[in-house]
Amino acid sequence: MQYADQINKLGTETAFAVSAQAKAWAKKGYKVYPFHLGDINLSTPENIVEATLKGIRDGKTGYCPSEGIFPLREALAHDVGTRRSVLYEPDNISIQPGGKPTIGKFIAAVMNPGDEILYPNPGYPIYESQIEYQCGVAVPYGYVQTDSGFDIDIDHLKSSITDKTVAIIYNNYQNPISAESSVEEMEAVAQLAIKHDLWVLADDAYYEMIYEGKSRSIVSIPGMQERTVILYTFSKKYAMTGWRVGGSIGPEKIIKIISKLNVNAESCTTHFIQSAMVEALNGDPSGAKHILDTLRERRDATLAGLNAISGINVPTPRSTFYLFPNVTEIMQRKGFDNVGQLQVGALENSNVSFCTREHFGRPLFDEKEFFIRFAYSGITVDNINEGMTKLKTYFEAI
Amino acid sequence: MQYADQINKLGTETAFAVSAQAKAWAKKGYKVYPFHLGDINLSTPENIVEATLKGIRDGKTGYCPSEGIFPLREALAHDVGTRRSVLYEPDNISIQPGGKPTIGKFIAAVMNPGDEILYPNPGYPIYESQIEYQCGVAVPYGYVQTDSGFDIDIDHLKSSITDKTVAIIYNNYQNPISAESSVEEMEAVAQLAIKHDLWVLADDAYYEMIYEGKSRSIVSIPGMQERTVILYTFSKKYAMTGWRVGGSIGPEKIIKIISKLNVNAESCTTHFIQSAMVEALNGDPSGAKHILDTLRERRDATLAGLNAISGINVPTPRSTFYLFPNVTEIMQRKGFDNVGQLQVGALENSNVSFCTREHFGRPLFDEKEFFIRFAYSGITVDNINEGMTKLKTYFEAI
Repeated sequence: MQYADQINKLGTETAFAVSAQAKAWAKKGYKVYPFHLGDINLSTPENIVEATLKGIRDGKTGYCPSEGIFPLREALAHDVGTRRSVLYEPDNISIQPGGKPTIGKFIAAVMNPGDEILYPNPGYPIYESQIEYQCGVAVPYGYVQTDSGFDIDIDHLKSSITDKTVAIIYNNYQNPISAESSVEEMEAVAQLAIKHDLWVLADDAYYEMIYEGKSRSIVSIPGMQERTVILYTFSKKYAMTGWRVGGSIGPEKIIKIISKLNVNAESCTTHFIQSAMVEALNGDPSGAKHILDTLRERRDATLAGLNAISGINVPTPRSTFYLFPNVTEIMQRKGFDNVGQLQVGALENSNVSFCTREHFGRPLFDEKEFFIRFAYSGITVDNINEGMTKLKTYFEAI
Repeated sequence: MQYADQINKLGTETAFAVSAQAKAWAKKGYKVYPFHLGDINLSTPENIVEATLKGIRDGKTGYCPSEGIFPLREALAHDVGTRRSVLYEPDNISIQPGGKPTIGKFIAAVMNPGDEILYPNPGYPIYESQIEYQCGVAVPYGYVQTDSGFDIDIDHLKSSITDKTVAIIYNNYQNPISAESSVEEMEAVAQLAIKHDLWVLADDAYYEMIYEGKSRSIVSIPGMQERTVILYTFSKKYAMTGWRVGGSIGPEKIIKIISKLNVNAESCTTHFIQSAMVEALNGDPSGAKHILDTLRERRDATLAGLNAISGINVPTPRSTFYLFPNVTEIMQRKGFDNVGQLQVGALENSNVSFCTREHFGRPLFDEKEFFIRFAYSGITVDNINEGMTKLKTYFEAI
């Protein structure tokens, strides 16, 4: 029997290897400080749990429409539209089992074999995996480090557009680097999409994980709503990564295609979880506020810890739950030329576990500086402080 | 902006159109007798609901492994192996968000563009949709009606195998026709698979929906376990179609590929639902027994009602929750040449709603007889009896 050739093109989330290393180290009896996990160790708000149980008791245990139940599509259209100052209707919504499913389904809806899709790199590794698995060409665009964070390398992005380009994946409030577009940068991305008549996948997974001020969305720019599919997830805001519920939001025609892919793939998203998400959107918001407040404290503690290390200087991002320090100076101090050495060294010498730039897309051009990623969503402030003290000792040692 | 060409190859479940018709008819004030739904109007057993709530309270709300949690893979390997007299280990199991996801992922794992896959027709419409969407050739095999039900047309199946054939989809305890293989027929399918070195997708969705005696599985035949992927679902046995949990079960190498597709598609299946499924498999089985007992009563009532109609003669299938009467004589009596006329006529004249053969795969060869499908999983015995009386009047009228 044969296996399909195309499976060789399928990527994965290599960060799981870091989890395995951390687990193995903990098994030896060490207390590991887990900064590698993009997961959340907080409880899902109680009103959502109650609504889930009510949904089961009310018999929402049978099939529901592949595009999602109407009350949730209605509530989500209102919520997402209001937060972005645009109008969405229920027909603009296709409920999905998580945020991630929108990536593969968006690509399936717009890309022919040989077409090119621009994607952020470093970025979520599933972008390049899905583009290449589905027979497209994954064309990376990068970021440049600034005093305040990271800017998209717009010139590079512009020069990477060809007549084969069909879409740009745009992850504002970015994983892993926590980059946020200025008004000008977002406008520049939008104008490129409009000029070249491109689709945009707006990965808004962290749109509401913002600690100060307000989020901005590319769909609010005139000419963009009709060419943008938003990846929406309930996972972060309500600490429910393992519940698997999110949505694709965009023009009715492409949303119909995406829902048809759901008919073929998984029928529908868990029925009673969908009814609980109506409560999440319309009910008591204090649970989500508590989660955000807790994450803000963790951000501040992690930032303080990292910036106390000689050679590290991380500006304060106002969103995501990641920090992406440049560790080039630490690497030089230690005489390392592979950031994996630093990752394993930190685990074995300070019990601190983190991912590196290499877990977020295949570097495709010459990168001279080294970066690592800290996720502070799965670790308490006390453990952050403890871990950072140990990490400082290791990073500052020659 | 463009749409992907391949989307035009994507099929759907056309039975949803029947649901829409029934809904529209009910909206006009008619009491509809719903025999079109392959859904179950019974409650999920209470011990499963309790275990779900416990899972949430225990914090099983974060990500879990893409292949599923170990305790569930362990419990399911034991359960599925024991019921089929073969040995499965946790590494043979990939938990999925339902039974359906195994279809697309199995095809993705074994089929190259242009390869042929044999599939049952009439059969579950997603088979041909996924084969064709993924650039393969969907080659149907049919059934012949007998005194006791339906037999696979083995000669036709045999003659349809070419050097391009890579797999056979085999749905014993079949939807929509409730066919069950004899020992000889199952052996014949297995020998063809072995002789031509083919994969088999054993769609075992109804394996445990058996009202008398014991189920038989093709994996129990020597030489088959190593070439078979079982589609497993919790949906039917525990009346939890809307929960979305099932599994792919097979040789370790292909299961690893399937789990890697999960990493790329939906990350994982709802975490706390997985922990509840350990209770479903290992806990009090009386809920599942009640569901099966209730469905048996409905089968008997539907069978009695159908067989009371002049021109209909349906043998008693011991599994699934479908009946597939030959209505050729009724069609002749009414002067219809399209089974859709009978479906709409029955809805409008007797308020009885059902699907037809045309909702279960595209007929590809000359079919001279007409069939309709009754699902008795979503209707009470009282309503079955009421509906059947009305249907008899309509079907027997000239």
